[in-house]
Amino acid sequence: MTSSSPAPEEALVTMRATRWFTDRPVSDDALYRVLEAGRWTGSARNRQPWRFVVVRGTDARRRLASLGAYAGHLAGAPVVVALAVDEAAGGLDAQFDAGRVAQNMMLAAHVQGLGSCPATFFPESAVDQAGQVCAVRTPWRVRTALSIGHPGAVPAGKSAIPTGRRPLAELVTEV
Amino acid sequence: MTSSSPAPEEALVTMRATRWFTDRPVSDDALYRVLEAGRWTGSARNRQPWRFVVVRGTDARRRLASLGAYAGHLAGAPVVVALAVDEAAGGLDAQFDAGRVAQNMMLAAHVQGLGSCPATFFPESAVDQAGQVCAVRTPWRVRTALSIGHPGAVPAGKSAIPTGRRPLAELVTEV
Repeated sequence: MTSSSPAPEEALVTMRATRWFTDRPVSDDALYRVLEAGRWTGSARNRQPWRFVVVRGTDARRRLASLGAYAGHLAGAPVVVALAVDEAAGGLDAQFDAGRVAQNMMLAAHVQGLGSCPATFFPESAVDQAGQVCAVRTPWRVRTALSIGHPGAVPAGKSAIPTGRRPLAELVTEV
Repeated sequence: MTSSSPAPEEALVTMRATRWFTDRPVSDDALYRVLEAGRWTGSARNRQPWRFVVVRGTDARRRLASLGAYAGHLAGAPVVVALAVDEAAGGLDAQFDAGRVAQNMMLAAHVQGLGSCPATFFPESAVDQAGQVCAVRTPWRVRTALSIGHPGAVPAGKSAIPTGRRPLAELVTEV
């Protein structure tokens, strides 16, 4: 916990993507809490269709950062957690569960004052390459990785993607 | 908040699926907090590829409960939030984001002492029917809905799906 950790009820509405990080390492304890949050995430029929690959090495992170148009932030994060998902267990369902586990791990970072951002690898050949970097094999596929670190200043001229949201009136209907 | 609300750091590792509910209604304020957590969830390129359909009516919930082998709990929950997802924006990516928003909303229920469980509709014709119940049209597809309510006792003879998890040693590798 740091002084910038959000209050509990606030964490769910205050998390924003962090794409720039300081050089300060992520402690083993903080990373453990992130991985534990992943481990305890619910999944369809409790299949837990995921494996977590911790990537700290600069070369491996740079390779991953080259595998998607918006994956650059992986190169600058002190630690990356790649999500290997068993897609043989059902593509859409497995990706839904992958989103659940990613959200839980990012929140575990957020409540500790850390920042994070997911990156998606594409096209399909990039997913293959990400799997090679992460040393996983069939049926595990690495479509997504999370950068995690202490939030740094956004460099001048690097405007972030707008972080606003649609109002509830646009999002909610009732039947 | 109720006395059974988990502490902040604990919420991420203590949430389990709740499939049985009491008759006690979910307050408008509690539901608002759940929807707000959904609204503020991050998504790829901030597309927010989701709409939330609040379903309170008994008939509509029963129809949804019939649309999947494990969807029965939707009939017994005081309120259901169906997730309409814009799959035209990319099927796997949209489902990943749907998983993120579902997790955030379920956690918003959990920190308030409420229980929840996702249900998946299948086969594809059931997804069509769920869309009809929820009065959504192309490109919105309703593959998932969340039951939300105050946790009730599990009826005798209704054993839940095992809630244990694999140990981290099985889940984590490092490269």
